[in-house]
Amino acid sequence: MGAGAVQLFALGEARRYGEKVSAALGVPLAVHEERNFEDGEHKIRPLQNVRGNDVFVIQSLYGEPGSSVNDKLCRLLFFVGALKDASAERVTAVLPYLCYARKDRKTKSRDPVTTRYVARLLEAVDTDRVLTLDVHNLAAFENAFRCRTDHLEANGLFVEHFAPQVGDAEAVVVSPDVGGVKRAEQFRQALSRRLKREVAGAFLEKYRSAGVVSGEAVVGDVRGRVAIIIDDLISTGGTILRAVSACRQRGATTIYAAASHGIFVGDAARLLSDPGLTRLVITDSIPPFRLDPDAARTKLTVLETAPLVAEAIRRIHGGGSIVDLLA
Amino acid sequence: MGAGAVQLFALGEARRYGEKVSAALGVPLAVHEERNFEDGEHKIRPLQNVRGNDVFVIQSLYGEPGSSVNDKLCRLLFFVGALKDASAERVTAVLPYLCYARKDRKTKSRDPVTTRYVARLLEAVDTDRVLTLDVHNLAAFENAFRCRTDHLEANGLFVEHFAPQVGDAEAVVVSPDVGGVKRAEQFRQALSRRLKREVAGAFLEKYRSAGVVSGEAVVGDVRGRVAIIIDDLISTGGTILRAVSACRQRGATTIYAAASHGIFVGDAARLLSDPGLTRLVITDSIPPFRLDPDAARTKLTVLETAPLVAEAIRRIHGGGSIVDLLA
Amino acid sequence: MGAGAVQLFALGEARRYGEKVSAALGVPLAVHEERNFEDGEHKIRPLQNVRGNDVFVIQSLYGEPGSSVNDKLCRLLFFVGALKDASAERVTAVLPYLCYARKDRKTKSRDPVTTRYVARLLEAVDTDRVLTLDVHNLAAFENAFRCRTDHLEANGLFVEHFAPQVGDAEAVVVSPDVGGVKRAEQFRQALSRRLKREVAGAFLEKYRSAGVVSGEAVVGDVRGRVAIIIDDLISTGGTILRAVSACRQRGATTIYAAASHGIFVGDAARLLSDPGLTRLVITDSIPPFRLDPDAARTKLTVLETAPLVAEAIRRIHGGGSIVDLLA
Amino acid sequence: MGAGAVQLFALGEARRYGEKVSAALGVPLAVHEERNFEDGEHKIRPLQNVRGNDVFVIQSLYGEPGSSVNDKLCRLLFFVGALKDASAERVTAVLPYLCYARKDRKTKSRDPVTTRYVARLLEAVDTDRVLTLDVHNLAAFENAFRCRTDHLEANGLFVEHFAPQVGDAEAVVVSPDVGGVKRAEQFRQALSRRLKREVAGAFLEKYRSAGVVSGEAVVGDVRGRVAIIIDDLISTGGTILRAVSACRQRGATTIYAAASHGIFVGDAARLLSDPGLTRLVITDSIPPFRLDPDAARTKLTVLETAPLVAEAIRRIHGGGSIVDLLA
Amino acid sequence: MGAGAVQLFALGEARRYGEKVSAALGVPLAVHEERNFEDGEHKIRPLQNVRGNDVFVIQSLYGEPGSSVNDKLCRLLFFVGALKDASAERVTAVLPYLCYARKDRKTKSRDPVTTRYVARLLEAVDTDRVLTLDVHNLAAFENAFRCRTDHLEANGLFVEHFAPQVGDAEAVVVSPDVGGVKRAEQFRQALSRRLKREVAGAFLEKYRSAGVVSGEAVVGDVRGRVAIIIDDLISTGGTILRAVSACRQRGATTIYAAASHGIFVGDAARLLSDPGLTRLVITDSIPPFRLDPDAARTKLTVLETAPLVAEAIRRIHGGGSIVDLLA
Amino acid sequence: MGAGAVQLFALGEARRYGEKVSAALGVPLAVHEERNFEDGEHKIRPLQNVRGNDVFVIQSLYGEPGSSVNDKLCRLLFFVGALKDASAERVTAVLPYLCYARKDRKTKSRDPVTTRYVARLLEAVDTDRVLTLDVHNLAAFENAFRCRTDHLEANGLFVEHFAPQVGDAEAVVVSPDVGGVKRAEQFRQALSRRLKREVAGAFLEKYRSAGVVSGEAVVGDVRGRVAIIIDDLISTGGTILRAVSACRQRGATTIYAAASHGIFVGDAARLLSDPGLTRLVITDSIPPFRLDPDAARTKLTVLETAPLVAEAIRRIHGGGSIVDLLA
Repeated sequence: MGAGAVQLFALGEARRYGEKVSAALGVPLAVHEERNFEDGEHKIRPLQNVRGNDVFVIQSLYGEPGSSVNDKLCRLLFFVGALKDASAERVTAVLPYLCYARKDRKTKSRDPVTTRYVARLLEAVDTDRVLTLDVHNLAAFENAFRCRTDHLEANGLFVEHFAPQVGDAEAVVVSPDVGGVKRAEQFRQALSRRLKREVAGAFLEKYRSAGVVSGEAVVGDVRGRVAIIIDDLISTGGTILRAVSACRQRGATTIYAAASHGIFVGDAARLLSDPGLTRLVITDSIPPFRLDPDAARTKLTVLETAPLVAEAIRRIHGGGSIVDLLA
Repeated sequence: MGAGAVQLFALGEARRYGEKVSAALGVPLAVHEERNFEDGEHKIRPLQNVRGNDVFVIQSLYGEPGSSVNDKLCRLLFFVGALKDASAERVTAVLPYLCYARKDRKTKSRDPVTTRYVARLLEAVDTDRVLTLDVHNLAAFENAFRCRTDHLEANGLFVEHFAPQVGDAEAVVVSPDVGGVKRAEQFRQALSRRLKREVAGAFLEKYRSAGVVSGEAVVGDVRGRVAIIIDDLISTGGTILRAVSACRQRGATTIYAAASHGIFVGDAARLLSDPGLTRLVITDSIPPFRLDPDAARTKLTVLETAPLVAEAIRRIHGGGSIVDLLA
Repeated sequence: MGAGAVQLFALGEARRYGEKVSAALGVPLAVHEERNFEDGEHKIRPLQNVRGNDVFVIQSLYGEPGSSVNDKLCRLLFFVGALKDASAERVTAVLPYLCYARKDRKTKSRDPVTTRYVARLLEAVDTDRVLTLDVHNLAAFENAFRCRTDHLEANGLFVEHFAPQVGDAEAVVVSPDVGGVKRAEQFRQALSRRLKREVAGAFLEKYRSAGVVSGEAVVGDVRGRVAIIIDDLISTGGTILRAVSACRQRGATTIYAAASHGIFVGDAARLLSDPGLTRLVITDSIPPFRLDPDAARTKLTVLETAPLVAEAIRRIHGGGSIVDLLA
Repeated sequence: MGAGAVQLFALGEARRYGEKVSAALGVPLAVHEERNFEDGEHKIRPLQNVRGNDVFVIQSLYGEPGSSVNDKLCRLLFFVGALKDASAERVTAVLPYLCYARKDRKTKSRDPVTTRYVARLLEAVDTDRVLTLDVHNLAAFENAFRCRTDHLEANGLFVEHFAPQVGDAEAVVVSPDVGGVKRAEQFRQALSRRLKREVAGAFLEKYRSAGVVSGEAVVGDVRGRVAIIIDDLISTGGTILRAVSACRQRGATTIYAAASHGIFVGDAARLLSDPGLTRLVITDSIPPFRLDPDAARTKLTVLETAPLVAEAIRRIHGGGSIVDLLA
Repeated sequence: MGAGAVQLFALGEARRYGEKVSAALGVPLAVHEERNFEDGEHKIRPLQNVRGNDVFVIQSLYGEPGSSVNDKLCRLLFFVGALKDASAERVTAVLPYLCYARKDRKTKSRDPVTTRYVARLLEAVDTDRVLTLDVHNLAAFENAFRCRTDHLEANGLFVEHFAPQVGDAEAVVVSPDVGGVKRAEQFRQALSRRLKREVAGAFLEKYRSAGVVSGEAVVGDVRGRVAIIIDDLISTGGTILRAVSACRQRGATTIYAAASHGIFVGDAARLLSDPGLTRLVITDSIPPFRLDPDAARTKLTVLETAPLVAEAIRRIHGGGSIVDLLA
Repeated sequence: MGAGAVQLFALGEARRYGEKVSAALGVPLAVHEERNFEDGEHKIRPLQNVRGNDVFVIQSLYGEPGSSVNDKLCRLLFFVGALKDASAERVTAVLPYLCYARKDRKTKSRDPVTTRYVARLLEAVDTDRVLTLDVHNLAAFENAFRCRTDHLEANGLFVEHFAPQVGDAEAVVVSPDVGGVKRAEQFRQALSRRLKREVAGAFLEKYRSAGVVSGEAVVGDVRGRVAIIIDDLISTGGTILRAVSACRQRGATTIYAAASHGIFVGDAARLLSDPGLTRLVITDSIPPFRLDPDAARTKLTVLETAPLVAEAIRRIHGGGSIVDLLA
């Protein structure tokens, strides 16, 4: 029995991310085998003894060509199953990007509540813990999972990144829609604490007059300020682009945008060519594989979350406070 | 075995509500015993045979003097336990007001996620189904519960109530904060369909300039219109009062407010004396026992949800669609 | 992971009891927040990091004005839920008085078997262990709970208390009814071992002749002896008073009464004014808040169980034998 | 799906009992196969289609030569498993005698709480319901089982049997020890209702004076009366024999003894040769296979419980009240 | 509540199969929505009311280009979840081809036991029943699943197909390896019963002499006979081709091959061009999409299993015997 | 809490086996009580403190006169229950012979899948792990159990035993039927590695010509070789005897037979008197109590598995690899 040592696996495309966590944690990546069969099935298993260990499995559950979200999810589930069968003492799924986090409620009749199903599937293979980063709907997430969870936030990384950018300039933190106001406010407060002065807040919203969407309102003042648009994820980039346009029209001096997860589907590449946007900042939870690398180089900054995840793993293992880590 | 007949119980303060459901459903309230002991414990049991029946237990989980929320919750749990032990085929908890629905996430470190705990407690006594009305956070609710749930909305009742009030006047549906925009939009669309013309939408939000709350923005135009402020619940009434004041300042002609659940704590009575508010509309999910009956009579309209609940029970029992009921 | 340190919380009215356990154990009480909201809901959460710890939560589940049994039970349940969510390694509910222990069977048709429901509720929030003291029906308790349990007895404390009182006098241990004979016999044997001589035993029972309760029989001889009436709990005190009266009539020289739990409802205060009763001994599982402090001072002795509980916690944590503790 | 028809199986030695239930219920015994292999394993399976049926399996869990209690229990468990695998809609274990009902608590340190384990084993094979008769400790039983249970009592059969025996004579119902006082009192009340006059009650108990068992006290008056000693089960018969002797010494005119379950181990045959005992009455929950048939014929009456069980099955299937059946 | 009507859904590529079942059952396919999002997630939901229904969901879990096995599995899981959330009374997953049935044990250290994980995932979304056809390892399957299962066999279809082919000729049923001997023997016996005369049996196996595979042994006589090689599934076809070659060399007159599931990966197309093989017979559990349609037309016969599945559904719903269906 | 020390119990007839494990492990057997009652029930409990320990319970689940398989199974289940109730940190059932491992599938309609039921019963009493040796059907076993399992093989012991016996002679490993080919092949490969040269393989099978069993084929060459017939268990010995006879007829020089489990029912004693068989080798998983000791002495070798089990326990406790132990 005993407490068991930390052991770290990284599945499939999460290998590079896993190497960064491994380096930050000072624990080598353990070896596993992932075989694909011609009939479409796969086999996945640890190649090292895991008995009694405190195992962390890194998998980032975004889709990509050749490896669908569902495929990644199944591989994670079967690997956790194999780890537990092989007597791992505790298995924590480390998920920088959690899939189906936006399928968190019935928006139409008889919709699946997929967030909950994902939680139950993870439980079904005896996953002990889940560690995530900036989940889309925190309340849905915290209610869906009955195994232990820890939730990290990139907020601190964004603050450290933007504080020097803003410097002494007047700044305003902008939520691109009402749904993100709480999230933006949390960033605004942290940035204010870091800069030791109150930063302004604003948000955008479509509104209707006599049933017609009559415009994009900007609530709060952006004129003459450095605007930092903040969101949890970027899908087609449409929301961010509208916000950039609205801020520019209302006289923002410089416009940054930041989001934890860069999914970049559809014509999200427009973000990189929009002259109104000075720089776009995301984290490495999803590699920006759908963007042209050259275009990305000039406009995109990718913040590293691996050290944060490594420190969280250290505390989960050792009993340290995750609260203090995020404070 | 067999399918079993519908049987209806109403616990404690839910008796009056239960009588209305009973009348609408054409099924008499079944008899139970609730005894309180001097040492603070209680005993609760059905006095009729429940074997093989499709039992519905009505309890509205709001607090009131002499019967705390926790007390009501425990009585419900123990009664469901007794029903299942007595071989009820299926037990549905009918909860016009679900407690702890706002304790739906960790807002501070190590907060309880009470919504999930309530779900687990109901499961622990083998509750088969839960039927609720306008739960605060639908995503949290739908993820927390693993037994079957049905969720009713008072939206249709509000539409039926306000359509004749508005008549041919210009109207605007107002959300008193950004969190309620989705809910208000749903009402606005339904009202528009009912009136066969598009009704305007608007919402309020505090905003900050250089770190100071610099005002209450009204996004959307209310001037010259009948404003209907809509929210899911009224606690101290402060949010509604601020919205009334903002609508009045911006030139709304008549101002109504509506909310599914009237909790009315603190100085919520101010709502009834505010001359800016023409009428306040709530449902009977919580009786307005904290308001002065005379003051309430002049300003407060309480819509009946019991017929809606009765119809839902009929469909749950008979296999009819709840979706169609709400459509 | 790791074994984790002992951490001690005491909820609500159990604070004083918790302080005594804390002192005996040499572990400070950890800090938590308990907030009551105007609408009757509450929030409860640990204010300290609990990750990986071996947490003990003290709550004594008796009712008192302003804090019903059901209310205390819910607070305990939600606090355990919050502790487990916050990654406490193990949570033990320490319950000097377990509620609903007398609702242990169906005495009437369709009665709730509340003891079992309480067990299931504790399981539903992932309570790992339960530690109790002199539960009313041990068989019901041991069958109801499927998480680990430890059961302490005040027997040893009573023996230590009464041995010097009895001294060289002839003594008799009296059960006030047939239901308590086993319990009294256990005390009689322990007292005999302590005094190194056999103490007599007796018990009372109502009996019927031709269908009429024709009297209170005292089985066994009390004449000329120091009588110690022993029971598990005192509710209205009626049972004890009848036993005192019967012992006095049959010539007992001095009459003591002892019970683990002093609930004292109804006119239990009569116990303190009955001249036939020399002294009443209870434990601190329930503070005698319903008795007049002055009257209590002259007649009531309250034995401390906190050191016993502290030692049990030490052994539960360290793997020591609870059996040996009670031997 | 559908409700399903009643289907009745009787395992091993319960075949004769099953035939009586079958006759009373008007449902033929379904056919199953029970094969024993030389290596000590067995195979048991239904030979008829059980899909969708409401299946009742009769097994009486007493030990007998060639078929131990544990063996019977396992056969029951595996047969229930096979029935559920074969898509029986609902399986009720009908257990006129429930094994390990006296292993209901820890009497010594680290004792098994076997009653609870039996409950969990039955659950583990997906038993839907359990139907029993006069379980030793009802509170333990009701707390141990989490599947649905129904509990029958032979009380009514004893009343019907003894009412004509007593006729106009004075009678007294005697509990042979304090543990059985509640059970005897229940019989006394029912007999009084049946005879339309109050029957007397009494009980026996050993007592001690100065630490020595100084005798068997009879609490209540038996002189000149027809004594009916009542207990839940007869093991070695020692308890009954002591009671018979005490009643005789105290002047009872005629002495009957009755118990639901006749186990008759050790020198229980003495019961049949004791001249003080007029007649011994048991039920057919356990056939008196350990007694000499000739001796039994003269002294033993065996009451049929099969019709009661058949009626209970009819009501469990059809939704009728078991409460009313026992009232 | 009530029994509920049969309702039939067919997911994705199983649509054609579903239409055949629908036609045979006389129940129309119910309508559902399957939406794919650009980020790789999907949403799936029933578009019709399912409340109280006895729902059957057809999905055949083989991989194909554009729809991996894992993807299909997840869609099935999430759809079952949505059906149960929408109050379907019972959901049966109908899986003509069950994925990961060959990952049924650890062949290497720390291998996943994927069959078991698949069972647990289906349970995790509350699947009530699973209906499959010729699962690879029946013992593994029957132990892995704890929900109810029914297992169909194509044996009868093969018998009906081959009986007229064989006619009065001498025939021999050949298992291509020792692992399939039991399966082939079952077919041989059924074919013998159908032809009213005993058909011969044979099997192949590689054997070794001094550690070298020295040949393919044919155990049993094939000379001058019509050989029917039978297996459960065809993957690359290598096993079948070796058997064809061995039978030809040993003088079989005509050689047929039959297998329930035609996966056809690698160079399985060789099967169609091998002149030694007269005809290859499979079922429609997997459409032969990897084979050239023209080549398939000349050599491949695909037997319809949909009528068998339809009849099984009818019996599962109505309580009929599946055993009799397969007898 | 803490990791806990290894503690070893051996139940009933497993005592001798337990003593050998104890000696090899250097951990004394802990003391327990096993009492049988006249009514056929039993009580079993640990007599030592087990709190927080890593407890291993040895029981070999074969039947023997006076202690049926079902009886042993129940004793194991109840003892595990008592250990967990007494706060053992982890309980591993050590089962050199697992019962009902051949009841691993439905061979006839509605057969029990007893392997799965046994798994569920062990789970029902909270068994944490199961350690077995050469289970009959590994796939069935690995799918049935959801608690952790470890599976040992006697393969290595057989190799060590036979390598010197074979010496420089030509040898052939013979499977007595097709079902055992995989197992025999595993032994053949290990023996080849040990002897540093390829050993031949062969197997037997009945075959049919025109529906008549026309003989026992030996696939592979045995002439002039030392034949080692290998199987997992010996029941009546018929299979082995047929194999001995076939090998002798085909000219094997010396014939050994080996099996992990010697059940020896029916006329298995013939094995010892068959002159064709040089020596029979089994392990001590089942003592050969049904064989005549004198006859056994001359022909039977019993290999000790206790040291292997002891080493496995050491590694399960300390986190070592079982894979490496068997490699």
